[in-house]
Amino acid sequence: MARTAGFYIGLDVGGTTVKEGLLTAQGELIAREVVPTPPLTDAVGYAAVTGGIDRLLAQAAAAPEDVRGIGLAVPAPVPSDGRIKVAANIKLDLDGLRDALRESCPAAAVTFENDANAAAMGELWVGSARGTDSFVFVTIGTGVGGGVVHAGRVVSGVAGAAGEIGHMCLNPEETRPCGCGGHGCLEQYASATGIVRSYLAACRSAGVEPVPLAGPSDSRAVFEAARDDDAAAASAIETMCDYLGRALALVACVIDPEAFVLGGGTSNSSDLFLERLVECYRSYALICSADTPIEIASLGNDAGIFGAAYVALQASRR
Amino acid sequence: MARTAGFYIGLDVGGTTVKEGLLTAQGELIAREVVPTPPLTDAVGYAAVTGGIDRLLAQAAAAPEDVRGIGLAVPAPVPSDGRIKVAANIKLDLDGLRDALRESCPAAAVTFENDANAAAMGELWVGSARGTDSFVFVTIGTGVGGGVVHAGRVVSGVAGAAGEIGHMCLNPEETRPCGCGGHGCLEQYASATGIVRSYLAACRSAGVEPVPLAGPSDSRAVFEAARDDDAAAASAIETMCDYLGRALALVACVIDPEAFVLGGGTSNSSDLFLERLVECYRSYALICSADTPIEIASLGNDAGIFGAAYVALQASRR
Repeated sequence: MARTAGFYIGLDVGGTTVKEGLLTAQGELIAREVVPTPPLTDAVGYAAVTGGIDRLLAQAAAAPEDVRGIGLAVPAPVPSDGRIKVAANIKLDLDGLRDALRESCPAAAVTFENDANAAAMGELWVGSARGTDSFVFVTIGTGVGGGVVHAGRVVSGVAGAAGEIGHMCLNPEETRPCGCGGHGCLEQYASATGIVRSYLAACRSAGVEPVPLAGPSDSRAVFEAARDDDAAAASAIETMCDYLGRALALVACVIDPEAFVLGGGTSNSSDLFLERLVECYRSYALICSADTPIEIASLGNDAGIFGAAYVALQASRR
Repeated sequence: MARTAGFYIGLDVGGTTVKEGLLTAQGELIAREVVPTPPLTDAVGYAAVTGGIDRLLAQAAAAPEDVRGIGLAVPAPVPSDGRIKVAANIKLDLDGLRDALRESCPAAAVTFENDANAAAMGELWVGSARGTDSFVFVTIGTGVGGGVVHAGRVVSGVAGAAGEIGHMCLNPEETRPCGCGGHGCLEQYASATGIVRSYLAACRSAGVEPVPLAGPSDSRAVFEAARDDDAAAASAIETMCDYLGRALALVACVIDPEAFVLGGGTSNSSDLFLERLVECYRSYALICSADTPIEIASLGNDAGIFGAAYVALQASRR
């Protein structure tokens, strides 16, 4: 196909599904597949993933040799040396999977990136952060994750912990433990789970019945209640904005990025909190960083596919 | 001179003196001059600086044409585009000074870097951070400054505010204002001034007479009191360690560096606080970052000279 200099594949490996995309070097998504996540530890598991690749290539009438890079987004810290040590939610044999992918597409560079970092790179390539050189991506879902991009590349950190915004300790007086073993982490106040918890606490202290919730992370119900002028919901959103605004101001004191970009499910309700979040951020930021824009991510659930492919593209050009 | 491929000059421009050094490309300091800081806004001021350069060259029997780069460390934020907007403590005409330096050494690249960032680069080149790729330098003096180094280069930030560790808001409940206009900044607890203030507060609340102090930033007297088992001094040091340890853990959640390096006058008393600081850092850090080393800077007051020269060397090789 004459329009590109080869293809790139992004694989977003989640706990439930592997989302697979075939992209051009210009960031155009030309084919998409989803397969249930197998244990990625043996030939059967690898074949489930490479089978998806075969179907992507068939859709685009492309050959395996046309694939210049395969990038994987994985739910695990990826240290700067690329050696993944811990993957809590998936079974993954890194070397075995890499070998299987190389056999499938012999001309492809194979790269691994943390999923939040990959989503950040997707937003950089073709999303909200396009045209910036340095920004911080914050994904607000069940937890709070993040990705730091500097000079157009992910900052991984020596242990892969760069961008672990959710575990910044903002309230050392907090007695409830966080999942990380610490306490008072941003995630405890600003994640979907944190918003629901703050909401339930506000209902209890006001002696009012909470709205029905689909689960402990159903922040959407809380946002809907806020639309109906529910005071407990408003208070939970205020807590989220105050903590997240302070966290972003702290991040700005460290790397002073060009922009912040918010993704994850919660960002769909940004009309209810973005203005207040900007106010909170400004109240804590150094004056020279007070106008740093806070934007909403634009790629949604495909950010990981785009970003994984982009990391592979960068690696193939090194 | 056969041993080098040219010379580099580092100028550390402070409020009182300009420290000037002539260095080889290998980081050897071969001549050193100090001149009182003139207003750097006219020919007389520029001549005071270039006169020092002439004497450096004479000491080394080198010619102006041998100078490949001149780096300046300045007490001002230097944004990533190099355009300095504010310099609180010195009078500085950037373009005029640059022209005068280029006239003095026609083959030299001229670079500007924030003073704390330059000190960080000095430590990277020939000091405690040698051999690392990414680290965070924290300088604890009258205030708390910092420099973030990633992939062997300073992270400046879009407004030059990267590394402004001292103004991380750690205590939003604080009522006393910080010099930056905020409140609850790290600097209010962990600078020499902050240590003295914590000490005096502890003396007041215990109803004891403080030791004599040479001024509001005489943390050395507080450290000496701690050596004599003064409980108020111990409490001030504990506060410093708790805040600084938490700040470093927050920084690790953002960029997860290979190491932290502490400089500034207070670091001379590190035997009294480093062990406790490491404990505090670990108590707040994510488990995968808990072992990041916290080291003491080795170049002392010359770090700025070395680092300014190194930044110029990097620029001359681009």
